[in-house]
Amino acid sequence: MKKKVAVLGASGYTGSDAIRLLVRHPDVEIAALTANTHAGKAIDEVFPHFFAPDLPDLTEWEAVDWKKQDAVICGLPHGTTQGIIAAVLTANPAIKVLDMSADFRLRDKAAYAHWYGHEHRALHLQDEAVYGLTEFYREKIAASRLVACPGCYPTAVLLALLPLVKARLVDAHDLVIDAKSGVTGSGRGLKMASLFSEAGEGLSPYSIGTHRHSSEIEQEISAVAGAAVTVNFTPHLVPMARGELCTCYVRLNGSTVEDLGAALEQTYRGEPFVHVTRDGAIPRTQNVRGSNHVQIGVFPDRIKGRAVVIATLDNLVKGSAGQAIQNMNLMFGWPEATGLEQIALFP
Amino acid sequence: MKKKVAVLGASGYTGSDAIRLLVRHPDVEIAALTANTHAGKAIDEVFPHFFAPDLPDLTEWEAVDWKKQDAVICGLPHGTTQGIIAAVLTANPAIKVLDMSADFRLRDKAAYAHWYGHEHRALHLQDEAVYGLTEFYREKIAASRLVACPGCYPTAVLLALLPLVKARLVDAHDLVIDAKSGVTGSGRGLKMASLFSEAGEGLSPYSIGTHRHSSEIEQEISAVAGAAVTVNFTPHLVPMARGELCTCYVRLNGSTVEDLGAALEQTYRGEPFVHVTRDGAIPRTQNVRGSNHVQIGVFPDRIKGRAVVIATLDNLVKGSAGQAIQNMNLMFGWPEATGLEQIALFP
Amino acid sequence: MKKKVAVLGASGYTGSDAIRLLVRHPDVEIAALTANTHAGKAIDEVFPHFFAPDLPDLTEWEAVDWKKQDAVICGLPHGTTQGIIAAVLTANPAIKVLDMSADFRLRDKAAYAHWYGHEHRALHLQDEAVYGLTEFYREKIAASRLVACPGCYPTAVLLALLPLVKARLVDAHDLVIDAKSGVTGSGRGLKMASLFSEAGEGLSPYSIGTHRHSSEIEQEISAVAGAAVTVNFTPHLVPMARGELCTCYVRLNGSTVEDLGAALEQTYRGEPFVHVTRDGAIPRTQNVRGSNHVQIGVFPDRIKGRAVVIATLDNLVKGSAGQAIQNMNLMFGWPEATGLEQIALFP
Amino acid sequence: MKKKVAVLGASGYTGSDAIRLLVRHPDVEIAALTANTHAGKAIDEVFPHFFAPDLPDLTEWEAVDWKKQDAVICGLPHGTTQGIIAAVLTANPAIKVLDMSADFRLRDKAAYAHWYGHEHRALHLQDEAVYGLTEFYREKIAASRLVACPGCYPTAVLLALLPLVKARLVDAHDLVIDAKSGVTGSGRGLKMASLFSEAGEGLSPYSIGTHRHSSEIEQEISAVAGAAVTVNFTPHLVPMARGELCTCYVRLNGSTVEDLGAALEQTYRGEPFVHVTRDGAIPRTQNVRGSNHVQIGVFPDRIKGRAVVIATLDNLVKGSAGQAIQNMNLMFGWPEATGLEQIALFP
Repeated sequence: MKKKVAVLGASGYTGSDAIRLLVRHPDVEIAALTANTHAGKAIDEVFPHFFAPDLPDLTEWEAVDWKKQDAVICGLPHGTTQGIIAAVLTANPAIKVLDMSADFRLRDKAAYAHWYGHEHRALHLQDEAVYGLTEFYREKIAASRLVACPGCYPTAVLLALLPLVKARLVDAHDLVIDAKSGVTGSGRGLKMASLFSEAGEGLSPYSIGTHRHSSEIEQEISAVAGAAVTVNFTPHLVPMARGELCTCYVRLNGSTVEDLGAALEQTYRGEPFVHVTRDGAIPRTQNVRGSNHVQIGVFPDRIKGRAVVIATLDNLVKGSAGQAIQNMNLMFGWPEATGLEQIALFP
Repeated sequence: MKKKVAVLGASGYTGSDAIRLLVRHPDVEIAALTANTHAGKAIDEVFPHFFAPDLPDLTEWEAVDWKKQDAVICGLPHGTTQGIIAAVLTANPAIKVLDMSADFRLRDKAAYAHWYGHEHRALHLQDEAVYGLTEFYREKIAASRLVACPGCYPTAVLLALLPLVKARLVDAHDLVIDAKSGVTGSGRGLKMASLFSEAGEGLSPYSIGTHRHSSEIEQEISAVAGAAVTVNFTPHLVPMARGELCTCYVRLNGSTVEDLGAALEQTYRGEPFVHVTRDGAIPRTQNVRGSNHVQIGVFPDRIKGRAVVIATLDNLVKGSAGQAIQNMNLMFGWPEATGLEQIALFP
Repeated sequence: MKKKVAVLGASGYTGSDAIRLLVRHPDVEIAALTANTHAGKAIDEVFPHFFAPDLPDLTEWEAVDWKKQDAVICGLPHGTTQGIIAAVLTANPAIKVLDMSADFRLRDKAAYAHWYGHEHRALHLQDEAVYGLTEFYREKIAASRLVACPGCYPTAVLLALLPLVKARLVDAHDLVIDAKSGVTGSGRGLKMASLFSEAGEGLSPYSIGTHRHSSEIEQEISAVAGAAVTVNFTPHLVPMARGELCTCYVRLNGSTVEDLGAALEQTYRGEPFVHVTRDGAIPRTQNVRGSNHVQIGVFPDRIKGRAVVIATLDNLVKGSAGQAIQNMNLMFGWPEATGLEQIALFP
Repeated sequence: MKKKVAVLGASGYTGSDAIRLLVRHPDVEIAALTANTHAGKAIDEVFPHFFAPDLPDLTEWEAVDWKKQDAVICGLPHGTTQGIIAAVLTANPAIKVLDMSADFRLRDKAAYAHWYGHEHRALHLQDEAVYGLTEFYREKIAASRLVACPGCYPTAVLLALLPLVKARLVDAHDLVIDAKSGVTGSGRGLKMASLFSEAGEGLSPYSIGTHRHSSEIEQEISAVAGAAVTVNFTPHLVPMARGELCTCYVRLNGSTVEDLGAALEQTYRGEPFVHVTRDGAIPRTQNVRGSNHVQIGVFPDRIKGRAVVIATLDNLVKGSAGQAIQNMNLMFGWPEATGLEQIALFP
């Protein structure tokens, strides 16, 4: 029998991409869609590209009968999320929660308060939450009821770097990450920087040295490095809707570029979604648009003793909704790629 | 058991979109991929967004064992196609052919020679071919072995106008069609007008009054009008990769805008892919990108006695590969939407 | 001695484009820049692309000493403009006003109230204002102190059609205008439809049959037709920042396509900015981006007795700030092209 | 009296941008335009955005009377350029040559052969040529007859880094340069990677560790460092036509971010085109599009002892044609900014 899944925050881009993917998931029934400012509307009024008469209308999250839901995918903004998730879990302690916000990603309470500017309002859940980087936390995810799906940038960066730091192939204290993202990374909110006439035909760095995703990246890198690590992380806004690419500049620990490639290949052998390029093929966002795939490549640097590691993914899929569904599959014991078989839309 | 399907011309955009869709088709095995200039390569070398180890390598079309194929989807250029299809049908008269080129769309031999500049080289097949506008030729398609899938523009225009001309609601001799297309409509060939720096940040009309798709539109409109019809057809190149929108300006035959809407709704009631908008909602290409859906809307003109009918689709899907698969489903007796359930990728 | 020119509404796109052009105008001193919500800031804080230490800081419009200004270019929104212009003219009756808003374009008071939803608040000025379509109102503009510069769409449409209607070459009652605009046409305000992720990679018709620019077009066409004319006017939003192209479908009054071309060539012979294409060359927005040029072409329709007339311009230049400066040049008795010599930025 | 200037390679993007700028240069007469494959055509046939009846028709370069030219701006491809420039200088030893190709940038003969794959065919001129990075070679440029204008990337990188390396503020042996460019950087040639449907809506790294511009950057950095320096240089293709931004990651030599900012401000104080941002303002390509301006900013890295230096320019202006004209102004003794006063076209 199909599992009932609700989507919280169905009027945003991560929420709507979850719906797009769930519509083809054979084991899922989309049972509730919430969007408090649009409650009462059909989803087609908010996203007219859903020609899907069977989808439920939008409701307020409080109006959902949470006891009847088997899982919830949450696309609400950070800060708002924690209270609502706490209420949902109180209403139905057995529900499986896939949170795409930042609210449960940081294990350190002080770190959360520092980066997000307020005390966490659901500390007990913060402890319980599992960081949902599928390829590295599979068992914990499968056993959990609350998964904090990683940010889009951290997913790309960690998939590229964790195996290398773990194997001590690169210096964890000299990681420079030049990140590029499409404009959906800023959400559907009305910001001047997100206007077509502002973001189009141009490239803009932003949040240099201050982006909140640094905290996640450092949390996970530090954990495998066995030491507190600080990374460079410099994001840039690119005139495209979807896609993200992180160019990571690393210092080799006496290792070679081949060692790095081998470590990545070994780590991701058999993974359905993480692909290490061969023969010098270069990752590009076009290869992953709309899909749950990640492409990683390693390249020699002209500077001796350094290398370049590049990872790309779709920020709304493997960077958000796709990874959430991948984790949900794990939690329900389904094959991990179920509903995520879509190849990239190219061009 | 799955049917074996070959894709001819797998290195072009319509061919690759057929593969993208077929990969998730539950009843199909992709059994051969041809691309004569790339024979011997893996498909990933030509389209690195296919992370699909199970796909066959590219071969020359002559190297395929056609007797073992159940169907072939052909994405070759016009002119080239006719000879190859003839050879394939000779090798295996039972194979089902879905042709996405223009070679078998025109029933009038003189019209083909006029518009394409040479005598047709497979005249017997031209007679046999069925025009693959699914919603209007279902029975013939189901009974056929050679389906000429309509051009992208004609699909949009005919879905919008055929029901109106047929019901004599509009004047067939005063049809003005302002068409807009993304750049994939020009294919993957190297043309200066297709360069990013030329097509980007700008809008260019082209082939004014001379576009070959006029011939298909006129053939089909004339057939239902019962008279030889000439239409205005003015295409424009839009800085987007996919998508097509046709704004049709019609003169009412004593009818009302509501009559037009009602005729369209009645025609497409129950259709899985053709959607008539309500309450003034306006079709836009964003709603159909990557999907097989078509969106049609009717609007009052400020000029009394006229109306505006707008249709949009993805030129590579309902305008090419999607419609081919929809027809193939008919020919094999499968539910028509099989493998085409994907909602648009938005944003 | 240079004339002192103020720009009202310097934080919007039309205002900033006026500044861009005025900076190279040899006879102008930019003496005041207003933007009430940004008063006190340097213009570089609002538009960092001005590396121009000599520009005045932004002030409130009430803080400008209007007696010292020789001219003002107004880029404020419609509705707001009329009261402020009235106050400015009261403070300095000799100032020359170039208004880029819609407030003084309609001569019919009822028409203004109908299209803009409120009674005009400066009716005496509405009477006095001259419609600033330079090529058709030169003498009146030169003699005026208040010029209502036409909307961007009307400028393109009227330059294409006025000579043809005037010469009775086309039927004034069968004009279909399919208009396409870049996203700056919607201004710098925060609207969801203007977001990169919404407007990008897609084409959207809007305001079908209801766009306010219809009223201007009809006013001017009616005046030369000698009868009340209603036109079709159907705008579309195109994923580009600048540029506008209007494809006009006309019915010939026994005339030929050559007659139309000849009438246009004769009308615009010697004009510095209006160019009629020859030998079938097709206008495209890329040819005029950032410049004050307009490109017009006439093409045969496939339907006998019809033709296609296409005009393109940059909505922020000939469609707004450039035409304002062209008119200002007339009013000061300077050569009309002064400061407007810039060739399009292509690519 | 105006100086006669020829443009070699007028059918490419750097050549046409030189024309765009020269049209408004008060001291220049455009006396000859060459494009051998288009000889005999009007420039409007190749670039229809030039509505400039006074421009000379395109000719073969051999047909120009070089003795009558005062200067030539060369936009030919590398390899081709060296022989033609040698011939032009033989015909007229007094002509001033502004070369935008790579042919005369490398002072080391072996380096040229290594990076460009063949022996240089005008070695005597290679010795004579001055590297045309205006802000650092002013006197040599003014005294020269042959100026090798730097590549677009090197201009941005060197303006950002030379003052810092020179003052020993950063470690010359740990320079990581993540570079991003619009598609015009690849020229007007027909390459699949330059197609709209390939380059649009996506980000692609390319030539990782192998880009030829590395050689120029290393040549100039080494010269001020007093040691052979190897840099990381990793370019990315961005879906925009113009613009380039280099994010440089540097290791501090005991210096502070403030020291870096101060060094840059001191170096560029009074420069007309190089602007160091203040108060954390972030350079972005939108600020310089179509202009000769460069914007540079320095930012703290999260990693202690490191900093981020960002520079942006328009690859066709300060990165090519604009810098050529700036150098030409120097060579003729004109004010350096003559003809280059244009503010960026934004949006």
